[in-house]
Amino acid sequence: MVEILVMKAINAENEKHARAVQTKLRSARILMVNMLSGPGAGKTRLLEQTLSQGSSAVRCAAIEGDLFTDEDARRLERFGIPVIQLNTEGSCHLTACMIEAAMEKIPLDGLDFLFVENVGNLVCPASFFLGEHVRVTLLSVTEGNDKIRKYPKAFQTADCLVLSKIDLLPFVQFSLAQAEEDYRRIRAGGLVLALSAQSGEGIRQWLEQLLLWRKEVSA
Amino acid sequence: MVEILVMKAINAENEKHARAVQTKLRSARILMVNMLSGPGAGKTRLLEQTLSQGSSAVRCAAIEGDLFTDEDARRLERFGIPVIQLNTEGSCHLTACMIEAAMEKIPLDGLDFLFVENVGNLVCPASFFLGEHVRVTLLSVTEGNDKIRKYPKAFQTADCLVLSKIDLLPFVQFSLAQAEEDYRRIRAGGLVLALSAQSGEGIRQWLEQLLLWRKEVSA
Repeated sequence: MVEILVMKAINAENEKHARAVQTKLRSARILMVNMLSGPGAGKTRLLEQTLSQGSSAVRCAAIEGDLFTDEDARRLERFGIPVIQLNTEGSCHLTACMIEAAMEKIPLDGLDFLFVENVGNLVCPASFFLGEHVRVTLLSVTEGNDKIRKYPKAFQTADCLVLSKIDLLPFVQFSLAQAEEDYRRIRAGGLVLALSAQSGEGIRQWLEQLLLWRKEVSA
Repeated sequence: MVEILVMKAINAENEKHARAVQTKLRSARILMVNMLSGPGAGKTRLLEQTLSQGSSAVRCAAIEGDLFTDEDARRLERFGIPVIQLNTEGSCHLTACMIEAAMEKIPLDGLDFLFVENVGNLVCPASFFLGEHVRVTLLSVTEGNDKIRKYPKAFQTADCLVLSKIDLLPFVQFSLAQAEEDYRRIRAGGLVLALSAQSGEGIRQWLEQLLLWRKEVSA
């Protein structure tokens, strides 16, 4: 009982900060993408490809969530964009309050995209809205077909399912069609992209989709 | 502040149930193994190999933790052992209270091993002692070398690090030596096993280690 009350209090507090994040994004006309997945599904690697292959006319920033280390921020800083590393020091998800604070340290003027890479965890981050326009959940083909059924909230709340590491499909048992079916069952009309940040397959479609989302926000 | 107080209360409650689990294990001379990992590192697959290749003189039972579905329990039931599926329905880890309740439904007499497969999550399960003798944390080589540094508690509290899916090593960037070094830095004297439940490589060493642990408990 106590636990439930506390969660409600946390969620109410989170909603308040999520609304503040939305206000900031709206006035600066920035698209925010919240990226979820289990550990090692390739969120950072996909962002590296996005930054290296995306149009140079598009301006990006990133907020990297991890329990510890600044390894991901260092990987993205090489592309000359503003990156903020958030260390939760043991906590299992990012909150809108953390995003609001991080945005204070990013020059928002003229920015097109703000990518938020959540803590690698298919459970807890799903319950916390950060104020994002688009939620993308990655599932690597090495993780197995049961994951969408086992962790439904992470996928049900995702506007887009990215099936990653498809270069490894010949070596694992994974059905893209089954994954798509399981996702569509809990999220009608959700978008599915299959890609490999290693081989580059599917990256063009991902970049095009990002620009489509950006257009919707500017309109 | 409130959150910290609640966590302390939860932990004290958990410790109480963990001691009750330990008492039950001791009187029945059962070795309990708590298996942790991120989603899809191959915990269930390793248990399938353990049950199919292990000595038929050894008696096992399993408790399967998942947010939803009974898929893992069904996979292990094929081996004719008692299996209890625990569904946390959204919660991110197993607690000792859940294990104590599940043990009520397992015939403990004559049992050698009780395997507990925790919720696939490298964060939260690390903080909850379930009364186990041995904690094993799996890291799949597809997840990348940064994970031990990013999720230290899951590995620091592990008596044994299992590097899984080594059949995929030729296709990914992963150093077994680096993983071993990162693990040993936070867990001096910890045991490292590298294996593939797919190819069978390393499974013999895993089975031998299980029997060694079992011996220590009986002594």
